[in-house]
Amino acid sequence: MEKSVVLGASGFVGKNLTLALNRAGVSVVAYGLGNRPEEFPDSINWCAGDFVEGAHLKSILENADSVYHLVSATVPASAQLDRISDIERNLIPSVRLMDECVAAGVKQLIFVSSGGTVYGPHVELPTPETAPTNPISAYGATKLAIEKYLGMYWSVYGLSSVILRLANPFGPYQSAKNNQGAIGIFMERILAGIPIDIWGKGDTVRDYVYIADVCDALLKARQVGVGHRVYNIGIGKGHDLIDLIKEIELVVGKKAAINFLPGRSVDVSSSILDVRKAESDLDWVARTTLSRGLVELFSWISRHPS
Amino acid sequence: MEKSVVLGASGFVGKNLTLALNRAGVSVVAYGLGNRPEEFPDSINWCAGDFVEGAHLKSILENADSVYHLVSATVPASAQLDRISDIERNLIPSVRLMDECVAAGVKQLIFVSSGGTVYGPHVELPTPETAPTNPISAYGATKLAIEKYLGMYWSVYGLSSVILRLANPFGPYQSAKNNQGAIGIFMERILAGIPIDIWGKGDTVRDYVYIADVCDALLKARQVGVGHRVYNIGIGKGHDLIDLIKEIELVVGKKAAINFLPGRSVDVSSSILDVRKAESDLDWVARTTLSRGLVELFSWISRHPS
Repeated sequence: MEKSVVLGASGFVGKNLTLALNRAGVSVVAYGLGNRPEEFPDSINWCAGDFVEGAHLKSILENADSVYHLVSATVPASAQLDRISDIERNLIPSVRLMDECVAAGVKQLIFVSSGGTVYGPHVELPTPETAPTNPISAYGATKLAIEKYLGMYWSVYGLSSVILRLANPFGPYQSAKNNQGAIGIFMERILAGIPIDIWGKGDTVRDYVYIADVCDALLKARQVGVGHRVYNIGIGKGHDLIDLIKEIELVVGKKAAINFLPGRSVDVSSSILDVRKAESDLDWVARTTLSRGLVELFSWISRHPS
Repeated sequence: MEKSVVLGASGFVGKNLTLALNRAGVSVVAYGLGNRPEEFPDSINWCAGDFVEGAHLKSILENADSVYHLVSATVPASAQLDRISDIERNLIPSVRLMDECVAAGVKQLIFVSSGGTVYGPHVELPTPETAPTNPISAYGATKLAIEKYLGMYWSVYGLSSVILRLANPFGPYQSAKNNQGAIGIFMERILAGIPIDIWGKGDTVRDYVYIADVCDALLKARQVGVGHRVYNIGIGKGHDLIDLIKEIELVVGKKAAINFLPGRSVDVSSSILDVRKAESDLDWVARTTLSRGLVELFSWISRHPS
């Protein structure tokens, strides 16, 4: 039976991916901090461990057909506040993981990178994978460094890898508490009647991709075969924050209150990904429009009150 | 009086640069491991310190117009053997240095990167600065990561920097003992009648640039003004190892004995840099041909028997 390991399985993308692999009939070892997520059926193996420490990794990697590396020990804001700790807690454990994947004979390492931060400003829009990579945030610099080590590990040690540079994913299990993306926070605050904080004028443009489409790409990535590949995963269309808030207001049927705060120098003004390479190589397409995804998420939130 | 700090001043490039800055009338603080190099005149300030620990950096950075970061705590072979230690000993101290340069108000940080390893294989030759950067060695991956953090520190914290991606520099003070480049080792071994080790068939092509030309570029880099810039520094021509050995044989008047060893997967087959950007922006040109440089180096070695 095919075996996948999901590192960071208790996070937003991790929960969705673990459940999707399980539904697809893959034997999953889910690894993450803390207790087993209550959403996981018994057929999913749970292993509690701290990726930064590398605890228990050796044993769970044995005989894995694919390993998904979804761990971020930081979010963009915390990475920027302590750049060195960000390197110590993300880059170094990731390189250690590569060593352990080589030792365990892992067939495919799939890494979730950040399409919104690895390119930096002044790139063509939508941005193809071949665009220059000049991050203007610590978060992006670390993600890019992990990508470059993956390329080197393929070239020198034959470790196959697929990098998925995600646009801004949204959907169920995205935690508003942990600052994981605008949509979850906005929807929760509009519903609760709490004002939304916006850095800048609201003209920041992002490519919002629904988590089901992201999981579809992640599942397909495990089957592309040996090599080292990089794919953008988004919908290839941009929405500014004002536009996004209007769409959410329509879906939830309430008006938002907005606090405008000064812009942040670590945010690029626009991020829209060119996803044609993933569409052709992975036989994948983002099926969910922004408004359809918002309807699905609102329906999920209504069934899962926090 | 203009003040420059040279970090890694007891190394090959560091000694040459420190002496060149001193000759140009710049007040130099030279920082490095161990004792003050005996070649340094009294007008050069020496500060012994371990860059990896960050010892004494704060005090010497104050009021510096330019800071040269030439430290490599590893060479390509040692970096590859312990990839994590390479990150801990090079990338992390370099990011700490960036923080300290911001705090001290340093006007220009000049970083010596590696033109032979940051690009990787499959790039056009001669290679321009805009070529894709896909290192196939730990050494190159770490140098590239430092470059990316420098770009981010310019964007977010306003720290000006110039990156010089050096081809293969050669000249006086290059230590054959520390595996610092082929030419010093080859010349020493041919003179001593010891066989030369070559990995591969001798068809590896490199761009060999004389240290006096490198120092000229380093001096000019401190004057390019605020911003973040990347320049290749080489002669823009390639020589394979067999060709190089013939040139050395001509200069020293002795024949080489060669041991052919298996090729190494971390070496790109050819590296030749396109240096037109440095020529136009820095008003710089590599004046020394390979054969002229070899004559100069042989003359220097004859006057400085080890």
